[in-house]
Amino acid sequence: MQKEKLRQLLTDIREGKVKVENALEKIQNLPFEDLGFANLDHHRSLRKGHPEIVFCENKTPEQVGEIFKRLSEYNNVLGTRASTEMYEQVLERLPGAVYHPVGRTITYENEKIVLPADESKHILVITAGTTDIPVAEEAIETARFMGNHVRSLFDVGVAGIHRLFNNKHHIDNANVIIVVAGMDGALPSVVGGLVDKPVIAVPTSVGYGASFNGIGPLLTMLNACAPGVCVMNIDNGFGAGYFASMVNK
Amino acid sequence: MQKEKLRQLLTDIREGKVKVENALEKIQNLPFEDLGFANLDHHRSLRKGHPEIVFCENKTPEQVGEIFKRLSEYNNVLGTRASTEMYEQVLERLPGAVYHPVGRTITYENEKIVLPADESKHILVITAGTTDIPVAEEAIETARFMGNHVRSLFDVGVAGIHRLFNNKHHIDNANVIIVVAGMDGALPSVVGGLVDKPVIAVPTSVGYGASFNGIGPLLTMLNACAPGVCVMNIDNGFGAGYFASMVNK
Amino acid sequence: MQKEKLRQLLTDIREGKVKVENALEKIQNLPFEDLGFANLDHHRSLRKGHPEIVFCENKTPEQVGEIFKRLSEYNNVLGTRASTEMYEQVLERLPGAVYHPVGRTITYENEKIVLPADESKHILVITAGTTDIPVAEEAIETARFMGNHVRSLFDVGVAGIHRLFNNKHHIDNANVIIVVAGMDGALPSVVGGLVDKPVIAVPTSVGYGASFNGIGPLLTMLNACAPGVCVMNIDNGFGAGYFASMVNK
Amino acid sequence: MQKEKLRQLLTDIREGKVKVENALEKIQNLPFEDLGFANLDHHRSLRKGHPEIVFCENKTPEQVGEIFKRLSEYNNVLGTRASTEMYEQVLERLPGAVYHPVGRTITYENEKIVLPADESKHILVITAGTTDIPVAEEAIETARFMGNHVRSLFDVGVAGIHRLFNNKHHIDNANVIIVVAGMDGALPSVVGGLVDKPVIAVPTSVGYGASFNGIGPLLTMLNACAPGVCVMNIDNGFGAGYFASMVNK
Amino acid sequence: MQKEKLRQLLTDIREGKVKVENALEKIQNLPFEDLGFANLDHHRSLRKGHPEIVFCENKTPEQVGEIFKRLSEYNNVLGTRASTEMYEQVLERLPGAVYHPVGRTITYENEKIVLPADESKHILVITAGTTDIPVAEEAIETARFMGNHVRSLFDVGVAGIHRLFNNKHHIDNANVIIVVAGMDGALPSVVGGLVDKPVIAVPTSVGYGASFNGIGPLLTMLNACAPGVCVMNIDNGFGAGYFASMVNK
Amino acid sequence: MQKEKLRQLLTDIREGKVKVENALEKIQNLPFEDLGFANLDHHRSLRKGHPEIVFCENKTPEQVGEIFKRLSEYNNVLGTRASTEMYEQVLERLPGAVYHPVGRTITYENEKIVLPADESKHILVITAGTTDIPVAEEAIETARFMGNHVRSLFDVGVAGIHRLFNNKHHIDNANVIIVVAGMDGALPSVVGGLVDKPVIAVPTSVGYGASFNGIGPLLTMLNACAPGVCVMNIDNGFGAGYFASMVNK
Amino acid sequence: MQKEKLRQLLTDIREGKVKVENALEKIQNLPFEDLGFANLDHHRSLRKGHPEIVFCENKTPEQVGEIFKRLSEYNNVLGTRASTEMYEQVLERLPGAVYHPVGRTITYENEKIVLPADESKHILVITAGTTDIPVAEEAIETARFMGNHVRSLFDVGVAGIHRLFNNKHHIDNANVIIVVAGMDGALPSVVGGLVDKPVIAVPTSVGYGASFNGIGPLLTMLNACAPGVCVMNIDNGFGAGYFASMVNK
Amino acid sequence: MQKEKLRQLLTDIREGKVKVENALEKIQNLPFEDLGFANLDHHRSLRKGHPEIVFCENKTPEQVGEIFKRLSEYNNVLGTRASTEMYEQVLERLPGAVYHPVGRTITYENEKIVLPADESKHILVITAGTTDIPVAEEAIETARFMGNHVRSLFDVGVAGIHRLFNNKHHIDNANVIIVVAGMDGALPSVVGGLVDKPVIAVPTSVGYGASFNGIGPLLTMLNACAPGVCVMNIDNGFGAGYFASMVNK
Repeated sequence: MQKEKLRQLLTDIREGKVKVENALEKIQNLPFEDLGFANLDHHRSLRKGHPEIVFCENKTPEQVGEIFKRLSEYNNVLGTRASTEMYEQVLERLPGAVYHPVGRTITYENEKIVLPADESKHILVITAGTTDIPVAEEAIETARFMGNHVRSLFDVGVAGIHRLFNNKHHIDNANVIIVVAGMDGALPSVVGGLVDKPVIAVPTSVGYGASFNGIGPLLTMLNACAPGVCVMNIDNGFGAGYFASMVNK
Repeated sequence: MQKEKLRQLLTDIREGKVKVENALEKIQNLPFEDLGFANLDHHRSLRKGHPEIVFCENKTPEQVGEIFKRLSEYNNVLGTRASTEMYEQVLERLPGAVYHPVGRTITYENEKIVLPADESKHILVITAGTTDIPVAEEAIETARFMGNHVRSLFDVGVAGIHRLFNNKHHIDNANVIIVVAGMDGALPSVVGGLVDKPVIAVPTSVGYGASFNGIGPLLTMLNACAPGVCVMNIDNGFGAGYFASMVNK
Repeated sequence: MQKEKLRQLLTDIREGKVKVENALEKIQNLPFEDLGFANLDHHRSLRKGHPEIVFCENKTPEQVGEIFKRLSEYNNVLGTRASTEMYEQVLERLPGAVYHPVGRTITYENEKIVLPADESKHILVITAGTTDIPVAEEAIETARFMGNHVRSLFDVGVAGIHRLFNNKHHIDNANVIIVVAGMDGALPSVVGGLVDKPVIAVPTSVGYGASFNGIGPLLTMLNACAPGVCVMNIDNGFGAGYFASMVNK
Repeated sequence: MQKEKLRQLLTDIREGKVKVENALEKIQNLPFEDLGFANLDHHRSLRKGHPEIVFCENKTPEQVGEIFKRLSEYNNVLGTRASTEMYEQVLERLPGAVYHPVGRTITYENEKIVLPADESKHILVITAGTTDIPVAEEAIETARFMGNHVRSLFDVGVAGIHRLFNNKHHIDNANVIIVVAGMDGALPSVVGGLVDKPVIAVPTSVGYGASFNGIGPLLTMLNACAPGVCVMNIDNGFGAGYFASMVNK
Repeated sequence: MQKEKLRQLLTDIREGKVKVENALEKIQNLPFEDLGFANLDHHRSLRKGHPEIVFCENKTPEQVGEIFKRLSEYNNVLGTRASTEMYEQVLERLPGAVYHPVGRTITYENEKIVLPADESKHILVITAGTTDIPVAEEAIETARFMGNHVRSLFDVGVAGIHRLFNNKHHIDNANVIIVVAGMDGALPSVVGGLVDKPVIAVPTSVGYGASFNGIGPLLTMLNACAPGVCVMNIDNGFGAGYFASMVNK
Repeated sequence: MQKEKLRQLLTDIREGKVKVENALEKIQNLPFEDLGFANLDHHRSLRKGHPEIVFCENKTPEQVGEIFKRLSEYNNVLGTRASTEMYEQVLERLPGAVYHPVGRTITYENEKIVLPADESKHILVITAGTTDIPVAEEAIETARFMGNHVRSLFDVGVAGIHRLFNNKHHIDNANVIIVVAGMDGALPSVVGGLVDKPVIAVPTSVGYGASFNGIGPLLTMLNACAPGVCVMNIDNGFGAGYFASMVNK
Repeated sequence: MQKEKLRQLLTDIREGKVKVENALEKIQNLPFEDLGFANLDHHRSLRKGHPEIVFCENKTPEQVGEIFKRLSEYNNVLGTRASTEMYEQVLERLPGAVYHPVGRTITYENEKIVLPADESKHILVITAGTTDIPVAEEAIETARFMGNHVRSLFDVGVAGIHRLFNNKHHIDNANVIIVVAGMDGALPSVVGGLVDKPVIAVPTSVGYGASFNGIGPLLTMLNACAPGVCVMNIDNGFGAGYFASMVNK
Repeated sequence: MQKEKLRQLLTDIREGKVKVENALEKIQNLPFEDLGFANLDHHRSLRKGHPEIVFCENKTPEQVGEIFKRLSEYNNVLGTRASTEMYEQVLERLPGAVYHPVGRTITYENEKIVLPADESKHILVITAGTTDIPVAEEAIETARFMGNHVRSLFDVGVAGIHRLFNNKHHIDNANVIIVVAGMDGALPSVVGGLVDKPVIAVPTSVGYGASFNGIGPLLTMLNACAPGVCVMNIDNGFGAGYFASMVNK
């Protein structure tokens, strides 16, 4: 609608309703004009072509509820790092909202998400251990919310590498692979060496001792010897799901 | 040819030339059989579908020359972190080898690399400063070697952000974007916020003081607020080019 | 009153009431003489020309209450990092005290703070996200308490950089700018590149993963490519407000 | 039983029941075939020759109970980092399970563990202080569970080195030595200098100030001047007991 | 001249020479139009109102020479971190260029820098030790180049704090103070406690042991107890001089 | 009594009651003989000449009570990092025990501590802020327990350095000085530059942001420019009091 | 010979040649008596049962030569981190000394090293890459020097994990395994998951970016998910070889 | 002579030569009056009672020569971290200057240093290894220069702890002990546990791998379990010698 306002202005000039100097000033300010509620980023969805995402951590349940309500008028909305208290506030305002307790996300579909007919072009999410599953679930839910088929393969870490090989056909069939791992963070290196697909590595803060809340696996992944591996922030399942969705499309 | 050996063995069983127990043992060992020169990874190109890559650093010029010679018999070869001394040894053995001094790569094309007819699906490599260019060039040469159209945009860091906006159409047209930055490493966050394309961030060790040889920009990039940004190791232009190529295909 | 004591002593010498040797000893010790309650820093306000400030964290509510009471006899008092329990103790002793819950400050005006008539010479406080607001509010309240006009602009981080540009006239009109940001901490670099005003960058500990409680944005800000950016300690909104007030005057 | 399936297949080929091409495909997939419950690692005990181990931390008591139940059908099971709540769930399902509160382990013996008749070939576990005992106990219980004689010597740190020397004959008689220490982590260096046995050093996170949750003693141990010292992760008593058992055999 | 082009376009619309739709497209692209040599930042001096600055490190002497030549056509130019080899290349092209060997800067005055008549409003640069002088000189030359009166006070560190007090009147008379210190970095805290002026602290990498190339004093300065202290990157004398100049004006 | 046993043995040899070879073996083992309860370090007080000290943290109240009871039979006992629960257990067994809540120590005097008649040879304990007082009190109580006169001077940090100078005569009169400081940790450098006495610096974990739980002041103190400053572990008031006592004697 | 002196003394007592009190004093001092050249550790070989080892780094070639000469009189000698200059000095004095340039060790056999007849009980040394070979060679030479059969398997890192599996029989046959790896350091985790042998992991400083001179692989190895893995210091091939030798015996 | 000026002034007041108001102003400024060459710290020797010390690193040989010349007029001078080039410049100006190449110090005795008649009250300097000797020598020369008897004991690290015990009488006889150690830095803990003397621990940057240029032993020493140990900066032999001298007096 910015464009419409601009078109009107130009038409006004042409029709002599507005002076050149006045128009000059208006146009210079146009892209900087205050859109009122711009910071809530309706604008963003236009610019970036995606549904709205709310990082819920450090917000009050009421704030999360209100933000969902306003954003949901025109868009699908995904909330990450959400507590059950936050979900209750959202549910009160948006009865169709759904909570995913493992990955701690809330989704609301203003418009029903339709996955592509062809399931073969899918994202595979792998974890090294069972404690990495919450981060993996955040990635899975994000990628699904953005319209991707997602499959998963949990607890196939390198300590028992046969578990990975028993599932090699799953790895071979995926289009993009997310690998979530804590502790030694060695799994993305191995997966990256087995396939010729983009591998998105996510270190987790699970672990003890010299894992240092995820610094250990983060460094391992940055240093991955296999090419084709990129790295997300510690525990950032959302980021991995979002990036994988971009690549899958 | 593994497959051929296996087919022969099965035929031999069928024809009674080999006993079941003997075959049993052979088959169990088959995937583990020594291929002689396997560590030079002819095998890899089969498995991964890509040309050969040699990380030259910490090898002697003679070793680099010999490795290039042997790998070049069946494959195109890319050498990274290569010195001119290394190149001389390669050139002596492979007169068609080419050296790219800025990105410090050697390329040898056993089979001429043919880029796709459609140039629009290309990778864009951006740097924040001029000192980031060598890392960017490594990424560019890697991506080209792997059959991608690549464009570049140098010295458009956030300290003068109008330089980036003056080139926004370049950013909008790219299919995948690599952003190389040292110091504050803020450029990938800004680029990631402007476009809906995968952004591959590469921190560089250029800088002084609290940049700590690249730790500063590495952390900035891992913490990038814009979704759609993944991170490579410090100075790892090769990794970025390789990953971008996977995504671009 | 030190001066008065010294003048009396010199007069006494002149009048022969005190011997030279005795006076010699007294004068040598004069600047080191105990002022009784000096550590409560009435002295400081003389020396530094500013109202009293109390860092409340790690003090008991009673201690905070007592310190406010004594300091308020001659001065305006600002308490930072204050809890509601502390405020209750202050309020009991000083009915006019005010609590600002977001920035967690207590203010007491012994003498009414009068802002300058000219509002144009003001400080602008910007945040990258909504979670940075408490630190920003501490800065705002500190700067106001010290007699400055302050304006604010929240949630304009680089992930959606159009939000910043929509408000560029606010940035252009400010005299000093405080930028508060966590995560990638990239906003001060961008703001510093847009204006020719002193930019005071404050990293926040909000974030997760490789933000490491604020180390990530701290390094980003120290490495800011744009000149004209200086850095405060993590979460130190008070320091930023105080420094900005010095510069604004 | 993989082997049996393979033998049957080969026999089928020989007998003409299966075609070569079909068998070819089957055999290629054989090692990757899904074994159903493989991730629970029954497979592992075959491959590695040891009883089952469960890292309980970050699992729910119910999950721990269920995993113990299923694993205990064929194997002895050891659970580490186990709470009393977890133990209750295990006990409900496996009345013979035992909890060791200091080292926080659960053991269940499907088949009675029989220690070797010769007690002289034993593992000695030493601690520097009393606060290191829980980590030491985890090591002791792990090593016993794996069939080793274990002796212990607690609170003999270098601050009173005569305590160590008073027990030198114990050190001389051991076959393998585990040394658990926090704070300065100096004890393994001293023990390593006294004996000609493998010394396994375990740093603990006990301590304050510059011990940094175990980084201090970890570095000390990695830098141990005495040869014959290797290092485990911080607080990793289980790993030390497991490794010592391997060496002792 | 952007403005002129825009005015012309609007006039053309009015006069019917350009269609609304065509103008619409043009205006949308206008702010993103390529300015040709924009990356060399002539644009910047317009936008930011300051002379040109070149960070010379990691550039070849020839590059530095060429950049100086082109920038000097319309502006005064300052080069930092410059070697004598770089200076020779600049001198060849610009005979009036001057080299300051201690602070390692090159200055070229296209237009004679005229300092204000009133010397009282000046910047004071203090160092803790003699080894901090090169960083201080970079700050001094930067501030002078930007039109400020600058005074200096070297080697007055806290180990002999009487040296600082002997010069307290210098500190009291300054308008802005830059404090450069390595090792313990304690001087800015003391200076900040003595005066009511903005103090810009610059840590230096001079030192040994636990100074860790400037991390030690950097942390000290960030943690400065005295309010009114902000911090620059390690060894960043240029940044301090630039920031002080902004504040001084 | 070791000595007595040895004398008896030698006498036995002389008198022919013991054979040379048997004695040889006994003497070789003598220094390694188990003393029964040696680990409770009665032995230590003989060897080191000091009363008993118990680090209470990470012990149960009952354990602390029991240890106090046994140690108090022959010695004075000091417990550090003690909670009120621990004190209750001690008090139940030793009615004369005293708890010092600020420094969190328990003292029990089996034999009344008598301070030297000459008070001039005393230890001075200085803090930079009020939040450093608990660590200072631990130092004070330790030094008093070990028979030293101790004086204190709190809240004289460098942000208001006149407070230190107002008390310079106290500093000049001390024999040994302990300086406790958090945040910038700058006070020991200043004190070390003023006096010619040993200065023992103790960093505290009080602070926020880049103080990093005491790493900031620890580095400052290690890098102190003034000679005559040594450093204790973070928050280690006990160590400082103990070391100061050694030096004072 | 200590023992001889002691026996003589006891005999003297018995024979009345020495008084009890005099003997008492002598015996107390006996273990502390100066052995003259004790620091050159002839004593050590008695106590520890092994040949002499010299860490050559930071010694002058002459010092290395002299130390070798003296130690070689009674023992075999191994020098690590030795330069060719050092070797020349050794060779001049000991014509039979041998230099191993890759692992940078010097060996001198005073008595011919005889390996055990049974070759099956051997140590296997594996490297992830070719740049890890020097550290591996140091381990190999150390283990051989200490009388072990050693085999090696180089360049089998996880980026091409089939290379490892092609050699699985080598891994299965070894008694102890040393795994040397830089960059992501993931290989020990994989090897540890495949076998039931002690795995000694050695991180190397080879690498770039976030490998941080070996910190990256060091953390990976400490966090290895597979039990049975212990860790040596960065680049400490000697330590690994020594420890493996202890375990192999 | 400050005192003389002040006495004259007071006499002048008494005699009516100076007015009270004028005197008042003069006295207020007196302690801040510029002493001309004060920064060269003649003043310091008065204030601190010690000879002059020059930290030579990062100064030019000429600067070192000049500083020595001027300081030597009234004082003994010690230069640390001095090169032979620096010494040549000093020698040219002061023929009696002496260079100590191992500890890299220059000493010049304006007045002959006379050690106390009683040798028993001495400082003992211990090193763990031979590579720690240069740091130890710096400590030794500093302590001697300051008038102390010093003894030394080198290469008695914990890897062969009998070497330390063979010299226990030396340790028992010392008044103050300096312990210099790199690598695991464990020696001060052991020495501190053996004696009841102040132990000054100095970490050295000698070592490799996880010693991290001295961080490893620094942390070990800060965490020393034995009370009575304080810590100096990495490689700071001078600081240890200076501190020990203060304690010894």
